[in-house]
Amino acid sequence: MKQYTEMTKAELLEEREKVQAHYDALKAQGLSLNMARGKPSKQQLDMVSDILDVLRPDSDFNSDGIDARNYGNLEGLPACRKLFADLLGVKPENIFVGGSASLQMMYDTIAKCYTHGRVNSDKPWARLDKVKWLCPAPGYDRHFTISESFGMEMITVPMTSEGPDMDVVEELIRDEDVRGMWCVPKYSNPDGIIYSAETIRRIASMKPAAKDFLLMWDNAYIVHEFFGDYVPFPDILSECAKYGNADMVFEFASTSKITFPGAGVSVFACSEHNMEYTKKLLNAQVISYDKVNQLRHVRYFKDKDGVLAKMKLHASILGPKFRCVLDNLDREIAPLGIAHWEKPNGGYFVSVNTMPGIARATWQLCKEAGLTMTGAGATFPYGKDPQDSNMRVAPSLPPIEQLEQAMDIYCSSMKLAALNKLLAE
Amino acid sequence: MKQYTEMTKAELLEEREKVQAHYDALKAQGLSLNMARGKPSKQQLDMVSDILDVLRPDSDFNSDGIDARNYGNLEGLPACRKLFADLLGVKPENIFVGGSASLQMMYDTIAKCYTHGRVNSDKPWARLDKVKWLCPAPGYDRHFTISESFGMEMITVPMTSEGPDMDVVEELIRDEDVRGMWCVPKYSNPDGIIYSAETIRRIASMKPAAKDFLLMWDNAYIVHEFFGDYVPFPDILSECAKYGNADMVFEFASTSKITFPGAGVSVFACSEHNMEYTKKLLNAQVISYDKVNQLRHVRYFKDKDGVLAKMKLHASILGPKFRCVLDNLDREIAPLGIAHWEKPNGGYFVSVNTMPGIARATWQLCKEAGLTMTGAGATFPYGKDPQDSNMRVAPSLPPIEQLEQAMDIYCSSMKLAALNKLLAE
Repeated sequence: MKQYTEMTKAELLEEREKVQAHYDALKAQGLSLNMARGKPSKQQLDMVSDILDVLRPDSDFNSDGIDARNYGNLEGLPACRKLFADLLGVKPENIFVGGSASLQMMYDTIAKCYTHGRVNSDKPWARLDKVKWLCPAPGYDRHFTISESFGMEMITVPMTSEGPDMDVVEELIRDEDVRGMWCVPKYSNPDGIIYSAETIRRIASMKPAAKDFLLMWDNAYIVHEFFGDYVPFPDILSECAKYGNADMVFEFASTSKITFPGAGVSVFACSEHNMEYTKKLLNAQVISYDKVNQLRHVRYFKDKDGVLAKMKLHASILGPKFRCVLDNLDREIAPLGIAHWEKPNGGYFVSVNTMPGIARATWQLCKEAGLTMTGAGATFPYGKDPQDSNMRVAPSLPPIEQLEQAMDIYCSSMKLAALNKLLAE
Repeated sequence: MKQYTEMTKAELLEEREKVQAHYDALKAQGLSLNMARGKPSKQQLDMVSDILDVLRPDSDFNSDGIDARNYGNLEGLPACRKLFADLLGVKPENIFVGGSASLQMMYDTIAKCYTHGRVNSDKPWARLDKVKWLCPAPGYDRHFTISESFGMEMITVPMTSEGPDMDVVEELIRDEDVRGMWCVPKYSNPDGIIYSAETIRRIASMKPAAKDFLLMWDNAYIVHEFFGDYVPFPDILSECAKYGNADMVFEFASTSKITFPGAGVSVFACSEHNMEYTKKLLNAQVISYDKVNQLRHVRYFKDKDGVLAKMKLHASILGPKFRCVLDNLDREIAPLGIAHWEKPNGGYFVSVNTMPGIARATWQLCKEAGLTMTGAGATFPYGKDPQDSNMRVAPSLPPIEQLEQAMDIYCSSMKLAALNKLLAE
């Protein structure tokens, strides 16, 4: 097969006729498919629903002498703090176990910067004229939505195969208005990249002009391998501490993609100084979080090995889905030279970069044929991808047979968009 | 028995000798008792732990076509919205089902005033020079802690037997800096007063100078009778709407004292206009709350009658405890003329007003004898009771036999504090 960019106009027209016919046939099936969000499938949820048998009316609800059913222990059950400490490679006293969603804890962490300031801020950020924020992109749309909601000026930082482009970051943080940065360091959303040791070292040793710079370290996919074994990952708290930056970072994690999305347990990890300050603020906000659910998770997993064992089961469902996406791309798209993509071993996405200027058109064609994809542009600040190129593929939700159909629509749509663009030039 | 204020010095000295001896004997027992917080007892928690049998691995997790285990439905499961709508007397579309704690939703509602402003604010409150807030007192210390955390200037409004003194409120709201008010309208914390129909009418028809005035209506004890039958209570949303104040109020409720404290389900109720605005803001904060727990509660209670039936069981445990507190006060304190108190039929507290100037001393004597009480002053803004008189008694946590001991210590301590004061004058 010739690459599209090497085809003559006649060849392009001939190819378009073929692709259009295939696309029309797919469209005529009136399908309704969804690869838009990183939602676990029903099969995954069924697989972990035995967690609901862990606590029963006659269970022992005591954990370290605490009745998990009553008020108290703002920072979470000690046993749950220990479980997450082992997962993140930190000490239990660095862990705060919060509600059922890490996104909410991230939002709250930033909200408190605005209303109260950080532990080392001169004043609440609401009293600053301007807050700028570094957004490695492609990135997680919900991070950018938080930044936008608070009126931050978002600055796009290019992603490399080793993480955010640190030359760019080191230059930008010389501006005192730059107050923080979003990071998804392991299996980044959407690229699935693992930040390299050197990138992590450069991040941990940053010397931002803003002394209350906030590194938002969203370790959403810390144990989320779908190909191969668990990959250990450095602890960012001790890395930052090594360079005198102990208070710079808040790390986040949750069981949303281990047990139930939005109904699991979430945590943040931070320095003791940050913990003391944040607990004082949180003490005005909440008496205690859902410790019944914390205890349920502790008893279900027992320890880190218990978590990793469940992740192997998730991988047995997710692996074939990612294989399907990657195989379809390799077979249908690679020979045409109209896109390139990462080949992740974990996380929840495949990040596809089409030839410039066709992501939106591809999205639109998918939609018309009954396939909902993440909005083109969503992976960039303000929803604006300057190249109109990046698309996030989320293969987790549909059953595998639907996924084959969805990828057929996706590849056909991308081909058609590319052909239309090349023929219009 | 003579009232203390009518005793001669010789009689006071004789009485003090007797009381001191009794107090010393109690103290010598080395007890450790707690009547500080409105925590349900283990017996209550055991009684509702059958809720943990409602959802099992093989349950049907679909509710109105929604898999409760997955992301989605920010505003909560329709069935859960309906359950709370029936409890509060509003429409399901006025209900937002949030996390496991209404206190957090109250905090967040106010935090968003500061970071984003209300639906009808000119600017975020963080950009105002001053925010004043009306605090009917005695009131709930955690409300005041929220206000203090945001740097509000709290203004104490006296409580009457019908609710906040509305003559005072109507005068104070002429100040545009006064942006809101805390209310616990049914079985107020700590007085256990039910706001009268006339008070509610005057609140609902307020014309505050601040157009974005926020009425925080914490209906924490909406179904929490411990003596007698359920008492219906007017819906504040429609009351406010009647007077053109539909957007003024946010109402809050939770199952913290129905199922598990801090591990139940909480809601806010508001106008459609507020709902639309708040959902837009919440969309940046959270994907969805814990719908598994929502479904668990819906299946457990089925409907309002199911909730009321459980509350009868709670009353069977709480009623004798409140009877014990009131009987002890009637027998030991009433004849002495050193305190008066409300006689509530619901809620979680008995509010005792000692003669001026002895609440702190009473608290200290209790503490030394092994009884922890809510801090004297805690029921007032900034923890400062100008009369040093109000004390909140929380009888729910200790088993009844401990409660008898606790009340013995409490009454003896109060007597001793009164005698010490009268003898020092």
